[in-house]
Amino acid sequence: MKIIIDCLGGDNGARATVEGALAAMRKLDDLSVIFVGDEKEIGTILKEHEHTESRIDIIHAPTMVDGNDRPMEAVRMKRESSMMRAIRELRDREDIDGMVSVGATGCLIAGVTMMIPRIGGVRRPAFCPILPTMTGGIVGICDSGANMVVSPEQLQQYAIMGSRYLRAAYKIENPRVALLNVGKEEEKGDQLRLDAFKLLQNTPDLNFVGNMEARELLSGEIDLVVCDAFSGNVLVKSVEGTALELLKKIKKDIYSKSQYKFGALFMKKMFMEEKEFMNYQNYGGSVFLGTEKTVVKGHGSADRKAIFVCISQARRMIRRHLTEEIGKAIEKSIPKDDE
Amino acid sequence: MKIIIDCLGGDNGARATVEGALAAMRKLDDLSVIFVGDEKEIGTILKEHEHTESRIDIIHAPTMVDGNDRPMEAVRMKRESSMMRAIRELRDREDIDGMVSVGATGCLIAGVTMMIPRIGGVRRPAFCPILPTMTGGIVGICDSGANMVVSPEQLQQYAIMGSRYLRAAYKIENPRVALLNVGKEEEKGDQLRLDAFKLLQNTPDLNFVGNMEARELLSGEIDLVVCDAFSGNVLVKSVEGTALELLKKIKKDIYSKSQYKFGALFMKKMFMEEKEFMNYQNYGGSVFLGTEKTVVKGHGSADRKAIFVCISQARRMIRRHLTEEIGKAIEKSIPKDDE
Repeated sequence: MKIIIDCLGGDNGARATVEGALAAMRKLDDLSVIFVGDEKEIGTILKEHEHTESRIDIIHAPTMVDGNDRPMEAVRMKRESSMMRAIRELRDREDIDGMVSVGATGCLIAGVTMMIPRIGGVRRPAFCPILPTMTGGIVGICDSGANMVVSPEQLQQYAIMGSRYLRAAYKIENPRVALLNVGKEEEKGDQLRLDAFKLLQNTPDLNFVGNMEARELLSGEIDLVVCDAFSGNVLVKSVEGTALELLKKIKKDIYSKSQYKFGALFMKKMFMEEKEFMNYQNYGGSVFLGTEKTVVKGHGSADRKAIFVCISQARRMIRRHLTEEIGKAIEKSIPKDDE
Repeated sequence: MKIIIDCLGGDNGARATVEGALAAMRKLDDLSVIFVGDEKEIGTILKEHEHTESRIDIIHAPTMVDGNDRPMEAVRMKRESSMMRAIRELRDREDIDGMVSVGATGCLIAGVTMMIPRIGGVRRPAFCPILPTMTGGIVGICDSGANMVVSPEQLQQYAIMGSRYLRAAYKIENPRVALLNVGKEEEKGDQLRLDAFKLLQNTPDLNFVGNMEARELLSGEIDLVVCDAFSGNVLVKSVEGTALELLKKIKKDIYSKSQYKFGALFMKKMFMEEKEFMNYQNYGGSVFLGTEKTVVKGHGSADRKAIFVCISQARRMIRRHLTEEIGKAIEKSIPKDDE
């Protein structure tokens, strides 16, 4: 198994990606990697660690895509950046199975959706992050970045692809799929949601549990949320923002009174665990669904451990033949007279 | 000043609304109220408390609209319900200045937008809730319930109306208005957001601070969020859900170890304050912007204190002539050759 790794664009530089990949290779015997980035920098980091040279390749592409680049321009003008180069290699080389990047999300979405072929029958690939639920599980949000304007049929495909993904990568056997809406009742929402509801209800092999409201996201009763990219983005970011702000406020309040500070001494470990719990990096990166090749996007602030998790996640998807699984499921879902 | 109060539909029944209104009347000399609901029930509650009869009217309308009613059907078929009756009285009687309800949100939005005339020039009324920010202030979200499909011009009107509202009701002199989007950069988002950005940027007398991501909502750096009702609804509910779930998890974790339980003894007051802080009822209800008359919607679980807050809020809006203010501002914003 060969995974190509975009080493640039993360907050922790090439070091986190290279060291994370080395850790993954120590654990996973069948894994070899291609690092794309500044050859010299990568070489320096490699020298500090024990590693098997035959399992590592380096492609020199020292230009970085960053958050200030407009996605379309990055794809066209920064063709030699580490990110775009890695995507091209992934597309062109049969021996590369997957890719991991922590670079600018918008640019990665543009690059992957424009350059990596779609699985047959898939209308548009989707971008699917994972959040932890309060019951210790995870919930996938599909789509939360790729397509802001969608059709009911696209939402149906997200449900199908996301279900297969959660089964392959997280061993959730029969994922409970809900449609993000403004209320739980069947007749809620705009025309898109009304049409999507009917379509999802009539999709075979799908565990559709109906509409959901945003407040249920973390309840642990839903495994996959299906939505347009705009509201999916709002959903994911408001959960992140609220959790971080609330923990920050509690910390500030603890320091406001010596009595609280004293009490908190006994709870240090708990608060650290809460923070670690809300650190979605621990649960895996966001993935593309519907592309012919596996791409995992780690958070910009991903550290070594998070990179390790992303690589393991990509490996699970590849080993369980998710792409083929999705292809079969999508083909089955398309009405015969439609083709 | 006369405010009509829909006594039915809340989790705490007529008691919370009647007692909340009596508390408001004790504090506010110029206030008189009309209770709409079950006459006998209201009479029983009134008998338990000191009150001035001349300041209280009762309209007997014992039918309740609830969350199971489809909004459009409730407007047409439940004409004699307490909610629809109150809306009609508000529309028809010049001596009634405003209305407070804690009933089903969807039905109230349908009833108010269909029955209460719009302020001249206003395309569609908006529904604007308030959330507390982590810096001790508030942030308004406009729209979060009325119009799922909107034009850039409507978003512009939300910005204008919401700014006037925050000034009148919360004394925020120059509200910072942001457009909810998937990124901060000007070129982010779908065509609606791109067009709205340009329009907002060129709106005089508006403190437009640009695009915002959902994660910034509680930062205290934004006073008013402008968005379509679908994403506004997702935003508000995911903040509520995340905060509640996180506090619930912390509570559960405290009980998991005796050491944590011991530490928490010293922090009881703090945790209660956090919970109270996140209780958005304390900050006021959601309001309609763009209607000729003031309507405040309290949360379904509103208690006496929350009703008191909603009534005070309605009174502030009325006393500061918000409707006239909005009318003038909207008129000014419409290009002359457009009329």
